[in-house]
Amino acid sequence: MVERVLVTLDGAIQDPDAPLLYADDIGLLRGDGVFETVLVREGVPCALELHLARLRRSAESLELPAPDLEAWRFAVEMAAEEWGAEREGTLRMVLTRGRDSDHGHSGERSANKGGVLAEAEPATTGYVFVVPVPARVEKARTEGISVITLSRGISVDLAQNAPWLLLGAKTLSYATNMSALRFAQRMGADDVIFTSTEHRVLEGPRSTVVVQRDNSLITPPARNGVLPGTTQRALYAQAEKAGWDCRYEPLFVADLITADAVWLLSSVTLAARVASLDGLRMSAPDNAGEITEMVNRGIALPGSLADW
Amino acid sequence: MVERVLVTLDGAIQDPDAPLLYADDIGLLRGDGVFETVLVREGVPCALELHLARLRRSAESLELPAPDLEAWRFAVEMAAEEWGAEREGTLRMVLTRGRDSDHGHSGERSANKGGVLAEAEPATTGYVFVVPVPARVEKARTEGISVITLSRGISVDLAQNAPWLLLGAKTLSYATNMSALRFAQRMGADDVIFTSTEHRVLEGPRSTVVVQRDNSLITPPARNGVLPGTTQRALYAQAEKAGWDCRYEPLFVADLITADAVWLLSSVTLAARVASLDGLRMSAPDNAGEITEMVNRGIALPGSLADW
Repeated sequence: MVERVLVTLDGAIQDPDAPLLYADDIGLLRGDGVFETVLVREGVPCALELHLARLRRSAESLELPAPDLEAWRFAVEMAAEEWGAEREGTLRMVLTRGRDSDHGHSGERSANKGGVLAEAEPATTGYVFVVPVPARVEKARTEGISVITLSRGISVDLAQNAPWLLLGAKTLSYATNMSALRFAQRMGADDVIFTSTEHRVLEGPRSTVVVQRDNSLITPPARNGVLPGTTQRALYAQAEKAGWDCRYEPLFVADLITADAVWLLSSVTLAARVASLDGLRMSAPDNAGEITEMVNRGIALPGSLADW
Repeated sequence: MVERVLVTLDGAIQDPDAPLLYADDIGLLRGDGVFETVLVREGVPCALELHLARLRRSAESLELPAPDLEAWRFAVEMAAEEWGAEREGTLRMVLTRGRDSDHGHSGERSANKGGVLAEAEPATTGYVFVVPVPARVEKARTEGISVITLSRGISVDLAQNAPWLLLGAKTLSYATNMSALRFAQRMGADDVIFTSTEHRVLEGPRSTVVVQRDNSLITPPARNGVLPGTTQRALYAQAEKAGWDCRYEPLFVADLITADAVWLLSSVTLAARVASLDGLRMSAPDNAGEITEMVNRGIALPGSLADW
């Protein structure tokens, strides 16, 4: 059973224990690139088309060259097949701006003028990498997680007004997300829900917040500066068919406390129920299992680029 | 004349055109690491001790293992010597959390309990890389730069209240800084000054703002959530000796407009005078050359770790 699988965007299987990246990769030097994390289940990359669609959208936010989705699809499917069906895997798609030396050592591209590039595109860096799912995942799925709220210090209006802040793009610049998770661990919590300056609910450092209340599911809208969630989309597609009222609406922290259940949805952990929020115990509703089942059904489908 | 120099933290000179980094380096996957950019002038790394001090401080913010400063000093000096004295170079020190596979594929370290690590430290990734200075530098030093102000969307009070946002640490997560620079280029400007929600002056995406007014130099204090500047420190050390009144005080955008001169200070460009701000032309004061000279004198000294 393989422990790690590495496939470059040309479809070549690589040795994961051989160096792959150059010291001047801009993805490393400046966190200047985008990524996706995909669950491999039974040898299949889950909700792949939704991930490809989001990768394309993130790349556009960063003014990266448009990803060759056919090449990505091929590399991902090859990596998933190589990983095999015996157990779940965490598959990452990584796309960076490429090497600094290919950008004249400045890392600053010529401005993209009206969609026409002023010079030849320097090569980007792209690869797909599969590793086992983290140990924390099983417990989070079955027992839920303890969560604290932390301020992100920004307004929900910022995403519309400040595109340079890249809110809603899944960039490689995740240092503050990782720092928030370490802060939570020090506080004895498993995870974080970020809030805005208006005490509105934003998202987790690696998850989408969905509130369950009566027969409704509610998640904050992308215009509030959150990353659209692939797992949340997969859930909504199933839940709508099952008669749930699925909505995108601003949420306050108070809405979390009065909900039937609060879920953190993510590609690998899938549905983690918030079992305690800022120290407040939150009991599971009788139909919690239904959410988990709908997520499992939803992500088993590839989705469609057009669904994005 | 060498075009690029790469030295790993063990002091070994590496081929810059051979891959160095693994696909699962957390510095790349999550922008989870820190860096410094140092000017090499006449074969010497400028203000090296100030950069080492800031590297140590940034690593502490990210809860990285304390950098081995002796090893860094050695690698930097070797790289600078290898680069040679013929022309200036941009030297980067890059330190990441290491490989995901060394962290149990989770990227999440055990919490550091009271300074004692609960388990053996996984190896970090560290290297030093020298390339030519960007083409823009010469013009910025001699003719100045055009700058636009852009909101960072956060309050100056945030740094004190939200340590997980890593304000004031020089992390590899620079995607929004690069995005802001691209936005400026589209607006026909060279650079950016970020502002807070209170319209206070913060910093540039890769520089410190210093205002020159009469015999005073003023820069925003670190508690406002800005990165302490090594070049600004080197300038202040010289300017104080020369009788300037050097201060750390909050600045409003209005203070920029009424200043004798506004400077963006950075390790490689050094002192770039703001020649236009949001389209407003700003003429140079008669003593502008004095600032540049003091910066040149200041960065020629190594500084001291204790000065930080």
